[in-house]
Amino acid sequence: MSARRKVSGLHASESALQNSPEKIISAWVSDQRDDPKIARILDVLSQIGVPVQVVNRARLDSLVEGRNHQGVVLELIMPKELSEGELRSSLDRASKNALYLVLDHIQDPHNFGACLRTADAAGVTGVILTKDQSVGLTPVVAKVASGAAETVPIYRVTNLARTLDLMKESGVWIVGAAGEASSSAYQVDLDMPVALVIGAEGKGMRRLTRDRCDLLVKLPMLGQVESLNLSVATGILLYEINRQRGIF
Amino acid sequence: MSARRKVSGLHASESALQNSPEKIISAWVSDQRDDPKIARILDVLSQIGVPVQVVNRARLDSLVEGRNHQGVVLELIMPKELSEGELRSSLDRASKNALYLVLDHIQDPHNFGACLRTADAAGVTGVILTKDQSVGLTPVVAKVASGAAETVPIYRVTNLARTLDLMKESGVWIVGAAGEASSSAYQVDLDMPVALVIGAEGKGMRRLTRDRCDLLVKLPMLGQVESLNLSVATGILLYEINRQRGIF
Repeated sequence: MSARRKVSGLHASESALQNSPEKIISAWVSDQRDDPKIARILDVLSQIGVPVQVVNRARLDSLVEGRNHQGVVLELIMPKELSEGELRSSLDRASKNALYLVLDHIQDPHNFGACLRTADAAGVTGVILTKDQSVGLTPVVAKVASGAAETVPIYRVTNLARTLDLMKESGVWIVGAAGEASSSAYQVDLDMPVALVIGAEGKGMRRLTRDRCDLLVKLPMLGQVESLNLSVATGILLYEINRQRGIF
Repeated sequence: MSARRKVSGLHASESALQNSPEKIISAWVSDQRDDPKIARILDVLSQIGVPVQVVNRARLDSLVEGRNHQGVVLELIMPKELSEGELRSSLDRASKNALYLVLDHIQDPHNFGACLRTADAAGVTGVILTKDQSVGLTPVVAKVASGAAETVPIYRVTNLARTLDLMKESGVWIVGAAGEASSSAYQVDLDMPVALVIGAEGKGMRRLTRDRCDLLVKLPMLGQVESLNLSVATGILLYEINRQRGIF
């Protein structure tokens, strides 16, 4: 049996209905909501044939363990994480605009979710994570990702250094984000197949990961704090790469 | 008496020691920590003359209400929020590179904290918020901001529409972020004094705020989710404005 997860709230539910209706297997709606947004959600659920249970607030609260549900909870089959073999196939197809996001031991589910949402928006080819010591696809991650956990290909690998070597062999440049880099992302040419590597919160990349990088880049910091939030830095870098490629 | 707040954890404490040592009035350290990071924090506290209490874990836990403290808690005098009068003075001094960030009814403390951290990194002139219906400078905000709550000028105004009019009179362009804008931020010239306006999570700008904008811009979305996390979008836009100005 596939793993399952719950999505709650209007925004996340609308997103799931639009992006992965085929994964929705159950729905619960509050018996106290009577408004256009819920009506629209009920319409779509009916169209795609998902059974809806109208329940009271206490039942909804218990389904999501106190998270804010805004009167609607959906149950989805969990997205499947892809293997190293599938990453090889992706690399075989990689174009000059290939853009992978590598998260080296990311820990915080909010950061991971926000990175997936940003990765989707930036049209990345895939997100790569290590099997151990990285956060999983938990319900918190999926909620923060606002649907992107279902749309972005996520590859989970055992040995990141080996994977980066494989990517290099396929012509992908490994670009690491590092505060101590000598060049800013605005000073280097990123118009090539790229895997952007982001280190763990507070720790940065591991040495073995950093050693694999063809290039290190930093973001200019004009104030007094020394670093950006991980998902904010990821967003700025992914969008700058796309800008340099003339995609926008 | 000024309001006070607590900062906990290694990263936030180091940041407070570096950026606002003059605001630290008390410190508590675990009686079970004996490592270089804590030793360095104790050194600096001793240099700046802040009294340190060595306490047990239960006492530390109670000081921060269960948040993760990593063995160190500092108490700071809260940053002062600035008034509309002080914003007028700031506008009188505004250069052609003036860059204000306007948060229209922001609700989530994590987003607000991440926006402050990003605003500091992007060297903004000031952050502007409304007095009502926006999140305050709570301990969560200050912790996520990683020191930026003490370094970025924060103006709290009663009537945002009036403030935006005042800014326009001072030659500042009001640029609103809106998913439905016809131009992307990469297609317009943002090399002028700018107030970047970001709407509330999920709701966007209020109509009265939007009506004051000289320009609406969007970020290109290449995937299936329809929006970015608020603080990620703010970071991408602030960094793009600085890039266009040739500051980097």
